[in-house]
Amino acid sequence: MTLQERDKKHIWHPLTQHKLHPETIGITHAKGCILTDENGNKYIDAIASWYTNMYGHCNPYITSVVSKQMQVLDQIVFSGFTHEPAVKLSEELIKILPNNQQKIFFSDNGSSSVEIGIKMALQFHFNQGNKKNTLLAFEDGFHGDTFGAMSVSSLSVYNGPFEDFFLDVLRIPTPNGKNHQEILSKLQIIVQENNLAGFVYEPLVQGAAAMKMHNAEGLNLILEFCKKHNIITVADEVMTGFGKTGSNFASDFITTKPDVICMSKALTAGLLPMAITSCSQKIYDAFYSEDITKGLFHGHTYSANPLACTAALAGIELLTSTEIQQNIARIISSHKIFNEKIKKHPKVKTTRQTGIIFALDLDIKMERYGNLRDRLFKFFMDNGVFLRPLGNTIYIQAAYVISSEELEKVYQVIEECLDTL
Amino acid sequence: MTLQERDKKHIWHPLTQHKLHPETIGITHAKGCILTDENGNKYIDAIASWYTNMYGHCNPYITSVVSKQMQVLDQIVFSGFTHEPAVKLSEELIKILPNNQQKIFFSDNGSSSVEIGIKMALQFHFNQGNKKNTLLAFEDGFHGDTFGAMSVSSLSVYNGPFEDFFLDVLRIPTPNGKNHQEILSKLQIIVQENNLAGFVYEPLVQGAAAMKMHNAEGLNLILEFCKKHNIITVADEVMTGFGKTGSNFASDFITTKPDVICMSKALTAGLLPMAITSCSQKIYDAFYSEDITKGLFHGHTYSANPLACTAALAGIELLTSTEIQQNIARIISSHKIFNEKIKKHPKVKTTRQTGIIFALDLDIKMERYGNLRDRLFKFFMDNGVFLRPLGNTIYIQAAYVISSEELEKVYQVIEECLDTL
Repeated sequence: MTLQERDKKHIWHPLTQHKLHPETIGITHAKGCILTDENGNKYIDAIASWYTNMYGHCNPYITSVVSKQMQVLDQIVFSGFTHEPAVKLSEELIKILPNNQQKIFFSDNGSSSVEIGIKMALQFHFNQGNKKNTLLAFEDGFHGDTFGAMSVSSLSVYNGPFEDFFLDVLRIPTPNGKNHQEILSKLQIIVQENNLAGFVYEPLVQGAAAMKMHNAEGLNLILEFCKKHNIITVADEVMTGFGKTGSNFASDFITTKPDVICMSKALTAGLLPMAITSCSQKIYDAFYSEDITKGLFHGHTYSANPLACTAALAGIELLTSTEIQQNIARIISSHKIFNEKIKKHPKVKTTRQTGIIFALDLDIKMERYGNLRDRLFKFFMDNGVFLRPLGNTIYIQAAYVISSEELEKVYQVIEECLDTL
Repeated sequence: MTLQERDKKHIWHPLTQHKLHPETIGITHAKGCILTDENGNKYIDAIASWYTNMYGHCNPYITSVVSKQMQVLDQIVFSGFTHEPAVKLSEELIKILPNNQQKIFFSDNGSSSVEIGIKMALQFHFNQGNKKNTLLAFEDGFHGDTFGAMSVSSLSVYNGPFEDFFLDVLRIPTPNGKNHQEILSKLQIIVQENNLAGFVYEPLVQGAAAMKMHNAEGLNLILEFCKKHNIITVADEVMTGFGKTGSNFASDFITTKPDVICMSKALTAGLLPMAITSCSQKIYDAFYSEDITKGLFHGHTYSANPLACTAALAGIELLTSTEIQQNIARIISSHKIFNEKIKKHPKVKTTRQTGIIFALDLDIKMERYGNLRDRLFKFFMDNGVFLRPLGNTIYIQAAYVISSEELEKVYQVIEECLDTL
């Protein structure tokens, strides 16, 4: 039996309505930017497997250091114990994070990293005797699928059956360069009427909202407002972190730095699950006390797994190398040239780019999960490119090691696809 | 600088009040059941690093298959794609799960696996047009640290600052062999006054409640009651799963099988983070529809990570081997002999055992996180054994591969410790 057939028996896939999408593609190999399926078909991975494998699949440097670590120390309780990969990772990560970040707290996935960010915000106030019960978030934000993370998300297809069970969250529009005053006025009213604990946001690019991009200056005004009103700012850089925006973090482009930063995805270079929530000294100090209950009583069993830390360390080493930085610059330039051409296509409504993230909206009305999206996906796969359209948005977020030829192929297939519409 | 010193600069440890517990122990190596610190001290890991490394640390079979997988396929989007390690794992896992389990859904940690279980329970009813808004759980249960998982937990030191933000949960006592009628009467009242969606419970052993054990027959009565009233039963086997109780799952000892089972910890044999939520066909069918919104729109980026699936497969292979089954039987017998001796010690209040899990309560009043716990911990470590007392409970949950000599050493150090009190 094929993988595709065997898969149907017992696997319930994430984000999948199996009655409408019964077929999976069985992938047997991945190397660099190339995926191979069980029939020998090859695909360029133009979204780096959900923006994780930024240094290529089965990167020999990363796999060799992790294999070595596996012989020495695989796993250890991280309460009361520590180990070299975690300590070294904390040192190297702090070097590339915005310079107000001082402490790192480990978990296993992006949702958990956001839950921890929310808990830091709520307990920061609670520990000082202030019960603040409301969070602020952007319209169309997405922060994960656990209850706390769902609460701050606003994509309703994910949340429908669970909305009655959410934390109190108020929403503001993303800044578009024209609505600064409107947002600040709205914030003034919100802050007078509510006890805001924190603001959770994806800086510059909202991933699941189809790579919606917003204005850095406007975001900075919002963050300044939050600082002034003692609202803890939690930047969800799960998607944007580790070079995607052209800098190490999207927050690098914004003058006011967040109190808390959530990281996952590219953190471990696409090898293993892990997440980190970093924070400033101010946050940490609010939990540091002779009163044990003021501590953050949160902990996952595999926190700071030594293998995941080792992969993350190798990832940072690669990210900060001249070679990868040159690759990032090359991809950014290449996208700009493609953009100049494709934005004039009659089927293209708008285009946008932040760093290596490029997106275009089709000038076609459709439902987010409608049939056109499936036809687009099929066209790309039939032509050897793995792209995953979101609604009527086609976006590229390939590995930093994608070759110029591979990237040209991706552009070409997108253009061919537009011509068929 | 030592690891211990470097650790203090940037790491915020889980479940730790750093002001009261500033020192960590830097672990550099782990092999089998032996941990080695940066000063060369060796410790027997008598709790298998939070019940994960059940086949020993850096197990050569497990690390070799994972190293090989790393050369072939490291990571792939699990929506629309599948791969051999996940498919094979689904086939092998279904073989050892209670036989009503049919589908498996992947995530990255125990908390997430419980969130998914809760979402399955709530949406099961929602998809049939029934809004059920209350969950049932045991007193003293612990199910994780994300908001949904915290809601069903009831250990207040973890939850204090967040209780205002929880799902509605009602609690019943655990069955102790004498209170069946009382629990059933309470359930009758609860079910008349509330819209119960699901019951989330740790079967037989409540881990964080200091290995509190309860009555299988009583649990069965509760599960029968739930079935009768269409309350979805969610067994949290994160701690009890994969052989700990003397069978593959604690649910094996209970006639009525759960609708949903949550797994993590020993699932991946202590190598990497991963979790699974399995369910019966009945649950899956309630989501299978031509209406896309009836699907479970939950998904983590690293869902079904091929390396973690490979480790889990190797773990199941070892678990079901004659060698490991014999080891489990040996440890169970050995604990029984130790129990006969230690239960008579004047400092021992009670003892209990389920499978390889052995616990004793000291006949000494103390606070859960008080100073005595720290002194016990220090005594054990100074004597070369890693045990992690919970309140006034000392428990053993060592790897299946612990040697008889190592186990005797653990018993002996516990006895010496009692003598010093």
